[in-house]
Amino acid sequence: MNIFHTNLFKTVLSGGLLMTVVPSAESAKTQRENPPNFIIIFTDDMGYGDIGVYGHPTIQTPNLDKMAQEGLKFTNFYVGAPVSTPSRAALLTGRLPIRSGMCSEKRRVLFPNSNGGLPPEEITIAKALKSNGYHTAAIGKWHLGHKSPFLPTDHGFDSYYGIPYSNDMDKVEKTDHFTLANEERFQAYNVPLMRNGQIVERPADQRTITRRYTEEAITKIKDFKGEPFFIYLAHNLPHIPLFRSADFKDVSKAGIYGDVIEEIDWSVGQILDALKKEGLAENTLVIFTSDNGPWLTFKTHGGSAGMLRGGKGGTFEGGLRVPSIFWWPGTLKPRVVMEMATTMDIFPTFMKLTNTALPADRIYDGYDITPVLFETGPNPRDVIFYYRDTEVFAVRKGDYKAHFITQPEYDSDERTIHNPPLLYNLSEDPAEKFDVSGDHPEVIREIEQILKQHLSTIVPVENQLEK
Amino acid sequence: MNIFHTNLFKTVLSGGLLMTVVPSAESAKTQRENPPNFIIIFTDDMGYGDIGVYGHPTIQTPNLDKMAQEGLKFTNFYVGAPVSTPSRAALLTGRLPIRSGMCSEKRRVLFPNSNGGLPPEEITIAKALKSNGYHTAAIGKWHLGHKSPFLPTDHGFDSYYGIPYSNDMDKVEKTDHFTLANEERFQAYNVPLMRNGQIVERPADQRTITRRYTEEAITKIKDFKGEPFFIYLAHNLPHIPLFRSADFKDVSKAGIYGDVIEEIDWSVGQILDALKKEGLAENTLVIFTSDNGPWLTFKTHGGSAGMLRGGKGGTFEGGLRVPSIFWWPGTLKPRVVMEMATTMDIFPTFMKLTNTALPADRIYDGYDITPVLFETGPNPRDVIFYYRDTEVFAVRKGDYKAHFITQPEYDSDERTIHNPPLLYNLSEDPAEKFDVSGDHPEVIREIEQILKQHLSTIVPVENQLEK
Repeated sequence: MNIFHTNLFKTVLSGGLLMTVVPSAESAKTQRENPPNFIIIFTDDMGYGDIGVYGHPTIQTPNLDKMAQEGLKFTNFYVGAPVSTPSRAALLTGRLPIRSGMCSEKRRVLFPNSNGGLPPEEITIAKALKSNGYHTAAIGKWHLGHKSPFLPTDHGFDSYYGIPYSNDMDKVEKTDHFTLANEERFQAYNVPLMRNGQIVERPADQRTITRRYTEEAITKIKDFKGEPFFIYLAHNLPHIPLFRSADFKDVSKAGIYGDVIEEIDWSVGQILDALKKEGLAENTLVIFTSDNGPWLTFKTHGGSAGMLRGGKGGTFEGGLRVPSIFWWPGTLKPRVVMEMATTMDIFPTFMKLTNTALPADRIYDGYDITPVLFETGPNPRDVIFYYRDTEVFAVRKGDYKAHFITQPEYDSDERTIHNPPLLYNLSEDPAEKFDVSGDHPEVIREIEQILKQHLSTIVPVENQLEK
Repeated sequence: MNIFHTNLFKTVLSGGLLMTVVPSAESAKTQRENPPNFIIIFTDDMGYGDIGVYGHPTIQTPNLDKMAQEGLKFTNFYVGAPVSTPSRAALLTGRLPIRSGMCSEKRRVLFPNSNGGLPPEEITIAKALKSNGYHTAAIGKWHLGHKSPFLPTDHGFDSYYGIPYSNDMDKVEKTDHFTLANEERFQAYNVPLMRNGQIVERPADQRTITRRYTEEAITKIKDFKGEPFFIYLAHNLPHIPLFRSADFKDVSKAGIYGDVIEEIDWSVGQILDALKKEGLAENTLVIFTSDNGPWLTFKTHGGSAGMLRGGKGGTFEGGLRVPSIFWWPGTLKPRVVMEMATTMDIFPTFMKLTNTALPADRIYDGYDITPVLFETGPNPRDVIFYYRDTEVFAVRKGDYKAHFITQPEYDSDERTIHNPPLLYNLSEDPAEKFDVSGDHPEVIREIEQILKQHLSTIVPVENQLEK
């Protein structure tokens, strides 16, 4: 690791891209003696409303509530897509999935029989940080390609431990998900558990998967102590089928879904405690968020978007707006952040925090949001594009969101074209109830221009999900 | 006030009812050297989802969020009725409004031309505490009769300062509420502001009403310092028409409704600060809650029930479940409380905390919830009756709620009788989406028995709202 201290500010990316030096002239906050550690905790299908401090009445989340009290609770935080694979591609590359070919109408995510994955020429957060001397570890759900050269270890992670796609795949029984979950029949899903490139357990015992991911993360924290690290902990849950360990069985008032969230909450507490115990809390930025909204199809086995409309798969707020907590004690002043931000902003923000330039050869859809984190300047972001697969269905500019197309999240190809678009003021009407398109033609015109300009930046690439 | 210290535990109520001695053998927590002070802050039409820590994404409520972090955040807390007058009667008497004649289908609340009010034989919290040596002050909306002998000063309050009914009454202009609020035309509502029995301002300048109520409360805190007190601060807002002071104009991202809530949040902060400054915080129980759910009719001028279904006027959860925070630093251990409780429990709980027996000549619908507050025993409550006016429309027992009758909140007399009743598991399905009546006939039978037993306790009394 000695290379890190000498090379931090003049590193060459392994992909051959020069990471030019950015002298950090602005904020003392971004000039640190020791580069910060990063942990991203990414849940699967947890909804905006599934945490106590985001309004859930019966799911107990004392650790997440405390994390929010001690950190930044974002209330306008988005993912890059309303389903798993493209959302994960967006997070790890800082780019909309349309740019990497990681989205498709036909196959909305990767499946066990898929042959594609995140292209090798894409640069992940892990690859950029690794080139900068960071230890990197991926734990949990990958869903960006389970064959070489698409695995985490192909994409900048030193190690990988997890189920490489969704936990409801490789289903070998016809019984429904509800029954299988309640009867704890994890064998009905013949999903592999991998360590690096090898399958180490199949079917993975999903009942202990959250606990084991947590233990792996804590082991990594201890191993990495003293040198900079990035841990990407992507839980397979609360995606259906729902499983939890014996300690969390029937503990939640909210049923099995509540049990699962409460185990994840426990996991968050364990990780933050480990950071404190190891003396790393004050030099580690921990981000907790979710890959998309709740899978409403699964009723009480799915989560809740709280007061937001819609859920996973669709482009109403419930599909793409997720809970998000940034925690960095002593550095981030605890507060509620109503500024817009997205998972794609994480990459540029991490680069800023490590004084590293973004590769100049590609378009990034994320922004460096350190001005928001440190309250040092205006938010660089005031637009959100709501992609459903390869198309923009809606655009948010400031308070206003225009829906050009809407379609039920699942089980229907019927789309409705809106001309003029539906227009909602998300600040005054977060539940998207009151169309104000008639009142604000000028806003619609502005958003149409923004969309047109955005679409002009999209270059066709090979589709990875249809391979 | 000397009478208080000698007579605290053997006081005779002014109404002639013997308040028998209850030796406080159980919990040390309820045995205090100094009787605690009580403040109830009661908002008008604030919904379950209108506070940051209850999930609102764009209303900033740092003071309420902090109060919740430092106190008990109740997530299953109910009012006695989904509209103003009966809800207030329930809070102040600890009894369902059907027992005091304070509910009616024809006139759901009191109006300026009403001649009735809370009957003199009803005992309010104020009357009971006053008899026990407390100073008592009512500030804000009364709505339990604006003529003698129904005024606050007739009902145990030493003083009163406020608008005696809803702030949208005495309307003298035909323009709609939205326009009047946005144009700040408070003169369109010729509502009186009273001090004790006298009108001191008409029309009340509603733009400064929240600020003035706050100042009055702080003055009372200072005046009462050193002797036990009960302050009932019932804001007239965020009931439409919405008004806020100059300092809160256009400060909220959530529009004028957000401005109003943020001013109330400010008010809460001022009151808690005053208690701290006066050294009273550790001997004062402050309760913050709302009289009923959000008035959805008024769209962005109404609040939100978050993920809960329905709003003001109806018997889905959004009508009667409200945010509720109990704050008593050093005495109440901060946490989220998922136990059921109601505003009617406040009276018996205050009596317990002052070692005073409830009058034995009448039925109370509230319970002493000190076992919940202090975690010393099981919750005495596991049933909620959802009255719409004079009828029980729904009953909750434990996790389950049965709807026997449903009806749109407003603008429709069309009621639907459900046989079997709709049945929801509110713990797993707080949004009342998934009817499980087919799966749990035994639960329905039990709830039917509970309802039958309850109805047998109802004795016809004179209706006060139709006078």
